[in-house]
Amino acid sequence: MSGALKENPGKPSEVEYTHFKDLQALEMERGRLYETIVVTWDGSMVGNAAPIGVLCTGEDTVTLYLYQGTRTVENVLDNGRFTVNVTLDPLIFTDSTLGDLDEDMFSHYRDFLHLRGADAFFTAEVVSVKKLVKRDRFGESELHVVKARAGDVMRAESFRMVLNRGIYAVIESLIAYTRAEFSDPLVLRERIAEMNRVARKVGGPREKEAMRRIIQALESKIS
Amino acid sequence: MSGALKENPGKPSEVEYTHFKDLQALEMERGRLYETIVVTWDGSMVGNAAPIGVLCTGEDTVTLYLYQGTRTVENVLDNGRFTVNVTLDPLIFTDSTLGDLDEDMFSHYRDFLHLRGADAFFTAEVVSVKKLVKRDRFGESELHVVKARAGDVMRAESFRMVLNRGIYAVIESLIAYTRAEFSDPLVLRERIAEMNRVARKVGGPREKEAMRRIIQALESKIS
Repeated sequence: MSGALKENPGKPSEVEYTHFKDLQALEMERGRLYETIVVTWDGSMVGNAAPIGVLCTGEDTVTLYLYQGTRTVENVLDNGRFTVNVTLDPLIFTDSTLGDLDEDMFSHYRDFLHLRGADAFFTAEVVSVKKLVKRDRFGESELHVVKARAGDVMRAESFRMVLNRGIYAVIESLIAYTRAEFSDPLVLRERIAEMNRVARKVGGPREKEAMRRIIQALESKIS
Repeated sequence: MSGALKENPGKPSEVEYTHFKDLQALEMERGRLYETIVVTWDGSMVGNAAPIGVLCTGEDTVTLYLYQGTRTVENVLDNGRFTVNVTLDPLIFTDSTLGDLDEDMFSHYRDFLHLRGADAFFTAEVVSVKKLVKRDRFGESELHVVKARAGDVMRAESFRMVLNRGIYAVIESLIAYTRAEFSDPLVLRERIAEMNRVARKVGGPREKEAMRRIIQALESKIS
């Protein structure tokens, strides 16, 4: 740890990036939804960061589902641009959910802002926006479906992977399965059903197949 | 996809590994617990694979908590050796939990068996075994605390990271937090408490600090 880091613990150092042309450089697969930090900015280039699930729909296309009334959706609708940032740092996810990141957490790249020190990021330009009303067990909410095209894909040495909750849903389900005999079958079934929803929403074919096998094994164990 | 792969879909291809001397090559950090596949074998070299949490305790030391009555603990006590295998494949975790992996899922390395096609693996030799009785909300169980020393650390090109549930516990908690107004406060608190247990058990300092901030924000939101 350098002295500079100690004096200013919040500000990550600048990082060097290598430029790539599409999302394969980040091993993002079509049909999977990734947990990322989306950075947007207003007319005065004041940055905003929010944890957003980004659906990969092709080698240079993504779809975001943005809730009405957030700064992210305002900024995206205003200027049609944003960056998708990759990190595995729990404090970045936490601080950008609970409040605002400090100004010095943003860096400039061309006329975009991105998360300073991110393991990777890509620039994105909005292709289309559709408004829809989503009804689920949490009630009714207005959503903007934003389709966007990735531009420059920038990867740092520190890049490992883009966070995907699919494998986690499988592991959680397996842990619940091994504890089945100590669990209330109702609670257990509800937990596994929730993890199945997660795997189907964010995962790939192997996560979905894994959940199918777990549910089948569970039903013959507890019935 | 080659014809050979199609004919025998279950068997992964052999992989080339680079040899390293300690667990830093896998970016394993002291104090974190990782989700791995532990491979053991009996006197006839019949392999067994089981998903096991492996606590990193130093740059070449790990601790495993093994439940009584499993083939893993029998094999480990019998011959004092095993391999720790790294994969992100949900079907390997699933199939090794629900039943046995096929024989052709194991490969030989020196006089060890490891998971064929694993992103990485390391050989381990038992240093000490202590028996203890664990009492928790799931009841009472006999545990073997196995301390072991890592030998050869083998990493393939496909290696990205060793699975750690800490970041996922934080993400799950943040999702629960953003839905707080639609949730039963009791259910919400219980869910966050469970995720806090996971983060404290498996995570590093940043996951623990993230959970502290989430719980603090949640308490001022719902109280």
